[in-house]
Amino acid sequence: VQLEEDNFILSIAKQFPIKSTASLYGIGDDCAVIPYNDNESYVITTDALVEGIHFLKEQIPPFALGYKAIAVNVSDVAAMGGRPLYAFLSIAIPAQIDTAWLQIVMDGITQTCKQWNIELLGGDTVGSKRDIFINITLIGKALQSGLRFRHTAKKDDFICVTGNLGDSHGGLQILQNALPSCSEQDALIKAHFQPNPHLEEGLCLSKQAGVHAMMDISDGLDCDLRRMLSASGCGAIIETTQLPISENLLKICKMQQWDPVHMALEGGEEYCLLLSVAENDMEEVQKAYERACKKKLHIIGKITDTSALQYQTNKKNVSISLQKFRHF
Amino acid sequence: VQLEEDNFILSIAKQFPIKSTASLYGIGDDCAVIPYNDNESYVITTDALVEGIHFLKEQIPPFALGYKAIAVNVSDVAAMGGRPLYAFLSIAIPAQIDTAWLQIVMDGITQTCKQWNIELLGGDTVGSKRDIFINITLIGKALQSGLRFRHTAKKDDFICVTGNLGDSHGGLQILQNALPSCSEQDALIKAHFQPNPHLEEGLCLSKQAGVHAMMDISDGLDCDLRRMLSASGCGAIIETTQLPISENLLKICKMQQWDPVHMALEGGEEYCLLLSVAENDMEEVQKAYERACKKKLHIIGKITDTSALQYQTNKKNVSISLQKFRHF
Repeated sequence: VQLEEDNFILSIAKQFPIKSTASLYGIGDDCAVIPYNDNESYVITTDALVEGIHFLKEQIPPFALGYKAIAVNVSDVAAMGGRPLYAFLSIAIPAQIDTAWLQIVMDGITQTCKQWNIELLGGDTVGSKRDIFINITLIGKALQSGLRFRHTAKKDDFICVTGNLGDSHGGLQILQNALPSCSEQDALIKAHFQPNPHLEEGLCLSKQAGVHAMMDISDGLDCDLRRMLSASGCGAIIETTQLPISENLLKICKMQQWDPVHMALEGGEEYCLLLSVAENDMEEVQKAYERACKKKLHIIGKITDTSALQYQTNKKNVSISLQKFRHF
Repeated sequence: VQLEEDNFILSIAKQFPIKSTASLYGIGDDCAVIPYNDNESYVITTDALVEGIHFLKEQIPPFALGYKAIAVNVSDVAAMGGRPLYAFLSIAIPAQIDTAWLQIVMDGITQTCKQWNIELLGGDTVGSKRDIFINITLIGKALQSGLRFRHTAKKDDFICVTGNLGDSHGGLQILQNALPSCSEQDALIKAHFQPNPHLEEGLCLSKQAGVHAMMDISDGLDCDLRRMLSASGCGAIIETTQLPISENLLKICKMQQWDPVHMALEGGEEYCLLLSVAENDMEEVQKAYERACKKKLHIIGKITDTSALQYQTNKKNVSISLQKFRHF
């Protein structure tokens, strides 16, 4: 599915070849960039949530649905080194919708906008025959010096992530398998329904010249890292023992005999940031990040000049056969 | 349906009270306005087309569907006095879609973008369980002195429209009733499938200080004029004999015993512009418009200081009972 989507987007992008400049950038990254002034640019992203594909109406709490519609876009703005400002909502609603349920979805959208000082400036409210469709276009602003792309990773860069991997995917698996409730499981379900976009992390990292490339992880580390490598014309080695995996996920994996490494690599809807950092600047970036964000960057591998993504466990090559992430 | 939508939007707008300034304007008009530089602003609109609501897959030619997705947004930018620049496409596609059909929709989108020098800068391609959703967010630019809103009509203004009314609605009725083909009918069907946004008209009119208020007609003259009046705190008198109705529509109306005035007032998806012009500037605006656009502005009524919309035929009050426009 992801590969098909990438090819589809590529075929569109070919028809709109845009020279990458400091002030205008088109298809192919978390956000597009359009001019604002000499120092700053607008960054713009759009993300759709479709009933039956991205959420099940009977499963997701309506407030969480509204929250998520905004949060996934905030994550894209964060990945560019920007701060969100203005949102536009298109929502298609079947006639037989429960209006009380819909009101809570709208509360989720408006309160989440307020949480990040986003102004909802417009939209389109239309009917739908059967399924709910929610599209958010989010406009943010970034310093041009702070803009980060996915095509700028360089050989020998360290590969880092800003948070645990697999929690959201674990939460989804718990819901899908209707596992009984316990505190670990509730934490993972929360990670799935209320992902936390790494906005302050992105802003902090965008100030560091040593951060070469950055993107958010929305379709799983394996899938998104391959996108970064392909855009940058590089390969990578990832050390599986360094993947940050939460205690909660490890416990559930043990109970359910799930492979935590597979969960960490396959899991979509994670919304932490994936970045590459110049070898010589790693220490400085790590220090600045710890100071600002009160936590560590997780170093999980290195960029290579091959075109392959190689997984290693304790520095020995391993072959991992993954399933592509599907929402449902 | 329109009233419900307006109330829904109003309830959202209340939560995001934005002071109208030259450089920032929120919910309630054809576009939102965000800052660009001292003289210009970005204008932004978003419009969704939903299968089964705005189009029937079996009925609309796929190229026309792509065209229309862009054109309806260009019309919103035109209504603000702007010129379109950047588009963002979200499209939700069922797995069983005919890829050849989809490719023609995409060709319609990309070629229509090129026709108006719009760059497609990004988007989101997702799955859908059953129906197709196409959402376009369009960003344009306007001189701040050229921005026109719908809440600024003034007592004694002339009310004008830039094109014939009811053709698109006539085309839809022909399709819905499966009337046999003839040249008049084909012209109306074309008006329905390939509406012509009045971009150059909007740019010309936005340069005239005498143009007080402007918006596009997407849900029928009656419905959209009521929106302008409500936003401006005014009323209006409309002279039905002055409504511009095409020869093609008049012929079909005669054949089918449809009331052409009803068609003109109810018909949605028209995409010509509705504007109010200061009484003393009407002659100058008319001259400038004729010079630039090689056609006449149609004067159809006057703004009053009542809060009512009164229809007259040959200056005598008439009561017209209209049906609200529905796509299907």
